[in-house]
Amino acid sequence: MNIIDIIEKKKISRELTKQEIEFFINGYTDGSIADYQAAALIMAICINGMTQNEILNLTLAMANSGETLDLSEISDNIVDKHSTGGVGDKITLILSPIIAALGVPVAKMSGRGLGITGGTADKLQSIPGYNTEISIDDFKRNVKDIGISLISQTLNLAPADKKIYALRDSIGCTNSIPLIASSIMSKKIAAGASNIVLDVTCGSGAFMKDRKEAEKLAKMMNLIGEWAHRTTISIITNMDEPLGHAVGNSLEVVESINFLKGDMPEDVKEVVFTMGSYMLKLAGKGNDLKQNREKIQAVIDSGEAFEKFRELVIRQGGDVSFIDNPEKFEKAPIIVPVVSRREGYVQSLNAEVVGKAGVELGVGRKKKEDSIDPRLGFIFVKKTGDYVDDNEVLAYVHAPDAERAEEAVNRILEAYDISSLKQIKKNNILEVLY
Amino acid sequence: MNIIDIIEKKKISRELTKQEIEFFINGYTDGSIADYQAAALIMAICINGMTQNEILNLTLAMANSGETLDLSEISDNIVDKHSTGGVGDKITLILSPIIAALGVPVAKMSGRGLGITGGTADKLQSIPGYNTEISIDDFKRNVKDIGISLISQTLNLAPADKKIYALRDSIGCTNSIPLIASSIMSKKIAAGASNIVLDVTCGSGAFMKDRKEAEKLAKMMNLIGEWAHRTTISIITNMDEPLGHAVGNSLEVVESINFLKGDMPEDVKEVVFTMGSYMLKLAGKGNDLKQNREKIQAVIDSGEAFEKFRELVIRQGGDVSFIDNPEKFEKAPIIVPVVSRREGYVQSLNAEVVGKAGVELGVGRKKKEDSIDPRLGFIFVKKTGDYVDDNEVLAYVHAPDAERAEEAVNRILEAYDISSLKQIKKNNILEVLY
Repeated sequence: MNIIDIIEKKKISRELTKQEIEFFINGYTDGSIADYQAAALIMAICINGMTQNEILNLTLAMANSGETLDLSEISDNIVDKHSTGGVGDKITLILSPIIAALGVPVAKMSGRGLGITGGTADKLQSIPGYNTEISIDDFKRNVKDIGISLISQTLNLAPADKKIYALRDSIGCTNSIPLIASSIMSKKIAAGASNIVLDVTCGSGAFMKDRKEAEKLAKMMNLIGEWAHRTTISIITNMDEPLGHAVGNSLEVVESINFLKGDMPEDVKEVVFTMGSYMLKLAGKGNDLKQNREKIQAVIDSGEAFEKFRELVIRQGGDVSFIDNPEKFEKAPIIVPVVSRREGYVQSLNAEVVGKAGVELGVGRKKKEDSIDPRLGFIFVKKTGDYVDDNEVLAYVHAPDAERAEEAVNRILEAYDISSLKQIKKNNILEVLY
Repeated sequence: MNIIDIIEKKKISRELTKQEIEFFINGYTDGSIADYQAAALIMAICINGMTQNEILNLTLAMANSGETLDLSEISDNIVDKHSTGGVGDKITLILSPIIAALGVPVAKMSGRGLGITGGTADKLQSIPGYNTEISIDDFKRNVKDIGISLISQTLNLAPADKKIYALRDSIGCTNSIPLIASSIMSKKIAAGASNIVLDVTCGSGAFMKDRKEAEKLAKMMNLIGEWAHRTTISIITNMDEPLGHAVGNSLEVVESINFLKGDMPEDVKEVVFTMGSYMLKLAGKGNDLKQNREKIQAVIDSGEAFEKFRELVIRQGGDVSFIDNPEKFEKAPIIVPVVSRREGYVQSLNAEVVGKAGVELGVGRKKKEDSIDPRLGFIFVKKTGDYVDDNEVLAYVHAPDAERAEEAVNRILEAYDISSLKQIKKNNILEVLY
């Protein structure tokens, strides 16, 4: 077998065999296939697409290209969740302790933020002392002992995907649905969960801007899950505006704490309850989604979900006094209001513009190596559908200095579209596919 | 401007501007654009094709990527010729002295052989002492003084093409007509001739196996020539079987010498006379093709063409006694006959199989760095249409040792298709396009 024949085959749109795909993935992982050959093949895939068989074989080959996690010793019924990324997306922080409090073990590795998309690992690290890089043995032990552990991606999961992902970024091939689907699912499969709930974000702040594309991606990931014997549900959620009020690492942790104490922004609640009710169903904790929602409400009301979050933080070395007194989180040097220049209804709050403003401010990373300041970010007071007076505060910018505060204020003003027309908030759950 | 945007544009089949193509070619030549980015763009071009504007802009950008030759000081009317490659293709060796003898200056740089395609520079170097790497000043001086110089590609002509050509080879993108056309024409334009006659070979031993594809390539190169203000004529020739009787470097030199002395195999004669008559026409030496053919016959009959070849060899430091007594060329260690195992008519003599047998024998190179032995090769006694008895000699193998001789004999036997049906030789000139 040789890589040139494989590239030529895909170039003329013929289906690659399992063996050919494995030959490519193994060769690219071990370096015997050059970057330029992989680039040519990836471009051919981008243009000509892949058959369902090819996508499955690619996903499994990538999943098997490095370390894999076996969670069967802990439970047969671990439910993983994944979001395709968004702005202000703190769902994992909130949902994990809720699900764990309801008796479903949560063993989750999360990524770091890149570009406008935040990362759960970064958010957790804004809690002083919280160690996202504990050993895999400690990770498993925590899950066994207290039913939950949240860490960063310490294992070498799907290294082929890592290489291909970086390559795609540098050759204009990020937006191929077969490649996105196989990338996400290879990591989920390698991470060992038998049930997967996917949050496929859709809108200005998401990778998928278009509903039809989001649906295609969701269906493809469900299919891959089915083939790989992982029960998979995809929920398409609206990411036209940031989720909740807070964007920024420690600001989102505080919003999550408040949520677990019962202070629930409507959009966040909708996503948490919907995803949570499906996760409970997949974990065999009840088929009635309405009852599942009530169970979620119950562990929030009883304080059990909040308590589970405290336990998690303590176990991972974090200073729990910050959880008990969120005002202890260090504030950014400068906090300035964004004041509306007109009255009317918020038509939209563009999540992509907010995300980019965040990257410029220092909330997110432009490059993997960039450091981030957990104190920085935005608090949005007004969101889509809200009425705002001339000179009323729309949002607050938490900035490192006056200059960047001013820049951010201007960017956030641009993110708001305000006019006299009444506007109704969109539903945050657009579609559930399974 | 950035390369990722350019790649993405071509990925969705949008036309690249002149500036974008120049940005790519300059960046790839100076190394600021990586191989994997070039590979992705080349693959997108391979799959999505190029518009005529893109092809022209690519050709000119590549032609301008390195040194260029200005031949205007020698003559306004230099005619260059180029072949897309074949097996046993000694046309340049024969045609150049003929044309020079008729008063048209020949200043030609030729490539080395690679794969089944031979190279004129290698053939010339089998003449002891012949220096294919004289300085450009000497090259021009020879053309001025005796009307002819044949050298190897000593100038850094179209380095972008060189890089892209090597890349295409390693990513399965060799057979894209826009890329082949721009590759050939960029070198021809950089080499400075104002008139170009192209021998577009077609058949089993050529890059273009298919007549329609050969026509497309020919038309595209003619168009590029027109745009670049070079009068260009493409002649599609049959390359189903090797040209002439000899394949191999010194063997082909001997066949060329014999041709110039009047011993002309029919297929070689047809190509030489047709191409030559068009070259004379382009050089302003007469519009009547039939008269031009007569002029060619005349300089062969008079010995002027042969004398011009002698002059060339002397000027370039070659030992002319080998030209006067071709039996002086060193013979291969072993010469064995290929004997027919049946009687009948030769239906075909597959040029590709012959070419590959030659590469295995040591006539041609597998890789650029390979050395070749000028003594090795084949003499074909029987060609398409010839009648052959059982046990009659089909060909001779000139081999380095007994083992490789035997291998080559078997391969050559496979190249022959012999049956009882009468077979007519194909015409060697398939089409002239201008």
